[in-house]
Amino acid sequence: MAYQAAGVTLTDVQRPVADQLGAVTADLRSIISAEFTLVEAVNEHLLQMQGKLFRPTLLLLAHEASGLRDPRALRLAAIIELIHLATLVHDDSVDHSAMRRGMPTVNSLFSHQISVIMGDYLYSRAIIELVRLDDLEPLRVLSRVTNEMTVGEMRQLAAHDALGFREEDYELLIRSKTASLVAAACEVGALYADPAQRHALRRYGEALGMAFQITDDLLDYTEGEAVTGKPSGQDLKEHKVTLPLIAALPHFTLEERREVQRLFLEAEAPDRRVGRVMESVARHGGLEYARERAAAYAAEAEAALEDLGASVARDALRDAIAYAVERRR
Amino acid sequence: MAYQAAGVTLTDVQRPVADQLGAVTADLRSIISAEFTLVEAVNEHLLQMQGKLFRPTLLLLAHEASGLRDPRALRLAAIIELIHLATLVHDDSVDHSAMRRGMPTVNSLFSHQISVIMGDYLYSRAIIELVRLDDLEPLRVLSRVTNEMTVGEMRQLAAHDALGFREEDYELLIRSKTASLVAAACEVGALYADPAQRHALRRYGEALGMAFQITDDLLDYTEGEAVTGKPSGQDLKEHKVTLPLIAALPHFTLEERREVQRLFLEAEAPDRRVGRVMESVARHGGLEYARERAAAYAAEAEAALEDLGASVARDALRDAIAYAVERRR
Repeated sequence: MAYQAAGVTLTDVQRPVADQLGAVTADLRSIISAEFTLVEAVNEHLLQMQGKLFRPTLLLLAHEASGLRDPRALRLAAIIELIHLATLVHDDSVDHSAMRRGMPTVNSLFSHQISVIMGDYLYSRAIIELVRLDDLEPLRVLSRVTNEMTVGEMRQLAAHDALGFREEDYELLIRSKTASLVAAACEVGALYADPAQRHALRRYGEALGMAFQITDDLLDYTEGEAVTGKPSGQDLKEHKVTLPLIAALPHFTLEERREVQRLFLEAEAPDRRVGRVMESVARHGGLEYARERAAAYAAEAEAALEDLGASVARDALRDAIAYAVERRR
Repeated sequence: MAYQAAGVTLTDVQRPVADQLGAVTADLRSIISAEFTLVEAVNEHLLQMQGKLFRPTLLLLAHEASGLRDPRALRLAAIIELIHLATLVHDDSVDHSAMRRGMPTVNSLFSHQISVIMGDYLYSRAIIELVRLDDLEPLRVLSRVTNEMTVGEMRQLAAHDALGFREEDYELLIRSKTASLVAAACEVGALYADPAQRHALRRYGEALGMAFQITDDLLDYTEGEAVTGKPSGQDLKEHKVTLPLIAALPHFTLEERREVQRLFLEAEAPDRRVGRVMESVARHGGLEYARERAAAYAAEAEAALEDLGASVARDALRDAIAYAVERRR
């Protein structure tokens, strides 16, 4: 299976649409250019911290893989990144995060107030651009997804009960929080393709998104600060329950369970305790289990691609699976 | 002029559409019903603190005044209230307000996090419902307006410079923050009417919204806590510069200006100082000037109604002007 091939970089994945991604960045810049100084300053910061364009990449690849060449795809790719940026700004505000992608977040650099308003600004700009495309279909998909993501955020707030949060709760959470937008990117890319292809790409995106998020949560247990851009064990420190802990917890000794409870009661858990819980999670197979689940979703994404005809874009979508589960961030 | 007639109540204004407003409340309830416990709890709270349905009232009256009877108007009325609720939830979060309409705000009763997410939830639900109407036109109007409102909120953040905030800044602020949504309510109500009527109702709504907000800001100077539901002088305490202060400031003595500067440097200004600044504003004609400006906008709204044929609904829209500028809240 291709996703087991080592060493796939994001650059490999993006190769078939590299030119278009340059245009997406320029388009994004033109969309959020504003006449108001404060909005302008925040936008400039957001453009600087702009990420890897993973969702626009998937949208454009899905578009090509479904055999389409519609000029609206570029604009849709910019809009999906805009929606992603809007959710990041609000997520960071909700989490009081200070750093994102190695740069200060809007809430830390400007203020909490500005990040709430800017998130709204970016999202309503995205809706304006969608309306301009003069087609209700992408609006239908993307409004549902953004709503689903807010429900996911609500679930996240409920995910601080260390011993009561179950695997099915976690799956629901990451499905609504992450997989929904990745699936929407792929579906919107294939919006004007025949329904079977649109459906296949949606399934691909959903499984890919699940694999991507499980891997992300796993990296928080396995990678140090230098690699992930944030300190390892950060989720535990923020009292976020993710799959490795959920999977290992039933095998914990009584003393290990008490240690987890203590950690989740402390506003600022000492690094030593975080380290001990991480060791327990590893010892009781939590990392292995999470790896298996990510691999299972990767296989599901792979299978969905079978329904598409062979193409360079399809190969790149297959590479994206490898990238999602093997990346070191 | 009708808006000078005393004693118009909101009940008078709402009489021609009273039955429909009951249906709007039921519709709103059905739209935001959720399967997720936490969302449900917040929604229940929001429905309890539901306001006076001023914007749905205007939408339905505008609809009737333009001679239309489209069943979609009811749903649009519910959606405009939903958008209004979404902005209130984020406004309260941005302002760290504890009370609204005599009830605890979402951020104080639940948390800051929940209010950010719930605002997003409500707004994305509004977009979903707009998409369901299968018409891009209301989406076009309302997405622009919500974006404009975020720019207004940004301007609000810049409105803390007591001595540098000019009347034109204030006008821009309240136009984008308040008048835009009131204008949109009226325009969307008349969306399928002929363009002249749609345009007249939009102008009516914009002028009405300006008069409404100036009066609101004036009430903060003139009404005590019992009447407004929040303590008098609250805007000054929160370092918000509104029209009465802007108008009076050029006539302040040097000592009075120093007093204002002191107040705007204090995190929690003492009531005595707030009281002294309020007296200065009154003494130098700030209240009178704001009243004049509200009356001028009221006259503008009145004039816009001339372009419509006579109807019970048009009379009620005229009453709405009187209500906006004469209410004690």
